[in-house]
Amino acid sequence: MTEPFTLAIDAMGGDAAPDIVVAGLELGAERHPSARFLLVGDETRLGPLLARYKRAAAACTVQHTTEVIAGDLKPTAALRVRNSSMRLAIDAVAGERAFGVVSAGNTGALLALAKIVIKTLPGIDRPAMAAISPSARGDIVMLDLGANVSCDARNLVEFAIMGDVFARTVLGLTAPTIGLLNVGSEELKGDDRIRLAAETLRNSHIASQFHGFVEGHDIAGGAVDVIVTDGFTGNVALKTGEGALKLIGGMLRQVFSASIAAKLAYLLARPGLERLREWLDPRRYNGAVLIGLKGVVVKSHGGTDAIGFAHAVDVAMDMVVHRFNDRIREGLLRIGDTTPAVAVAVPQS
Amino acid sequence: MTEPFTLAIDAMGGDAAPDIVVAGLELGAERHPSARFLLVGDETRLGPLLARYKRAAAACTVQHTTEVIAGDLKPTAALRVRNSSMRLAIDAVAGERAFGVVSAGNTGALLALAKIVIKTLPGIDRPAMAAISPSARGDIVMLDLGANVSCDARNLVEFAIMGDVFARTVLGLTAPTIGLLNVGSEELKGDDRIRLAAETLRNSHIASQFHGFVEGHDIAGGAVDVIVTDGFTGNVALKTGEGALKLIGGMLRQVFSASIAAKLAYLLARPGLERLREWLDPRRYNGAVLIGLKGVVVKSHGGTDAIGFAHAVDVAMDMVVHRFNDRIREGLLRIGDTTPAVAVAVPQS
Repeated sequence: MTEPFTLAIDAMGGDAAPDIVVAGLELGAERHPSARFLLVGDETRLGPLLARYKRAAAACTVQHTTEVIAGDLKPTAALRVRNSSMRLAIDAVAGERAFGVVSAGNTGALLALAKIVIKTLPGIDRPAMAAISPSARGDIVMLDLGANVSCDARNLVEFAIMGDVFARTVLGLTAPTIGLLNVGSEELKGDDRIRLAAETLRNSHIASQFHGFVEGHDIAGGAVDVIVTDGFTGNVALKTGEGALKLIGGMLRQVFSASIAAKLAYLLARPGLERLREWLDPRRYNGAVLIGLKGVVVKSHGGTDAIGFAHAVDVAMDMVVHRFNDRIREGLLRIGDTTPAVAVAVPQS
Repeated sequence: MTEPFTLAIDAMGGDAAPDIVVAGLELGAERHPSARFLLVGDETRLGPLLARYKRAAAACTVQHTTEVIAGDLKPTAALRVRNSSMRLAIDAVAGERAFGVVSAGNTGALLALAKIVIKTLPGIDRPAMAAISPSARGDIVMLDLGANVSCDARNLVEFAIMGDVFARTVLGLTAPTIGLLNVGSEELKGDDRIRLAAETLRNSHIASQFHGFVEGHDIAGGAVDVIVTDGFTGNVALKTGEGALKLIGGMLRQVFSASIAAKLAYLLARPGLERLREWLDPRRYNGAVLIGLKGVVVKSHGGTDAIGFAHAVDVAMDMVVHRFNDRIREGLLRIGDTTPAVAVAVPQS
């Protein structure tokens, strides 16, 4: 690698690219003085932005391309666009010119390109998408959030191992507790796939951290530090929780604007309400990580702003600095050594 | 049937049975003067309660039994208990001595007993659990909430038809919109099963009501009147939304008790905050309906109180009065007539 902490940035992905990307890198460069950014996109649009954002300009090298992956392009079609900003940013990771990539572009395209170009870590069947979420316990990790619509027991076990390392790396926990999302907490609940995954985890090197099954209310309830589930359920659960918070946020805005007394009430309770709003601010949780690949891949929400994009850069830097992938490799080796039953129990392993 | 509107009531199911059951029937008898209740349980415990609750006493006939299905009994074991309060209440429906049954007991046992004893409607492969949920659009219907951990395309189509009838019956809508819960709204998203279900619905008699795929945030966002999904995802989504609301409720209580100013703020905003709390009150959404059976089966939350139990009775009465099952039969006949492709496309139909 030419630079120790270089991130490749898809400058053109997302609703308000490249403006919020460069504005986000301005914040990122301030927070991570050792970071270098390989900014891939249209230099005619990036030039004026970098003239405005001095810190970002000092940290960036621009790689010019005019091709962009549209938000609605199918992943199979995205794979054929050789010079898109997303593809060239991913190529930089595969070519070891960057440790990781951050993109706010088309999620399906990013997943497909990352899997094919960067490739999975040895021993990982499928990468998973992980992110941080608020709970009564503080921040927790949830995965998979949609990289894999259907998963087998082996995938779920791998997600648990990767989630453990993720929680140690990004949340700084020493022995994160792990729960498998199910329709009930009793051992008999769910299908064969999820029961086999639980049995495997109960016999693994992370058995002491494995809490067993958890239910939907345990996500916000904060029963565990790491919620493990398939990508279909995880995607629905993440968005359901976000939707519920948004609903109540809208209702509260109505309540506090309904009368003069209510407006006064807002002013009186403002410090607490503002702290609550900040704590639940979706930008603070921006940056879903595609883990299990031979490089750090972070997906920013397409509709975020500069503050949200900077959070995605924070997440990528955390993973690079803490040598996230090396630690996943170690976790996989340990489950391979200590639980030979996994290989027998789960056909595809 | 001996009485036009008799409901069988499992007096002994739930955390605070039979007290909250009888107290709930007191409210139910007031709201539904034509209702009669066949109250199945231990008469030595029910007698003193009925002496206290006069309206309930006037509407109830007690069927004595001392056996109770424990909350943690496995469904297979529950099937062997012949004289449990739950079983005898279900027997009353199968024997046409009641139109429906309400129980706050063991969900798995209720599902298993209802399926085996009451049986599914002709043309229904599997019953589903449906309930009402709050959204920005007002109340919506969601199903399946956990009766079927895995579902095929045919099940999802049947759930959509039953959800349509449920929304018409319980919410009083004339042409409810229906969405299939998925990880994205584009036609290509999800797995074969969900895409086949969508295709079938697009060619069915409810095509004009079918909105296509919806995502997790569309539940609270109120994108449609009826959310259709498999029991695993539905159960997780329901509980995730409840958990998120509970988290923010707890946070708000902290905010409004943090200082004198915040306490004053609460008093000033109280009318609006109280309306919001009432609107989101889980008791108002109590009463999940097991639909697709030859009788009305309503599951009350085990931890609810008299007000919540009375809501479950309301739901059961709505379904009985509106001849819910007759209307589901009509819906099934129509999908059978107008879309012969379903039978071809979905092997098990």
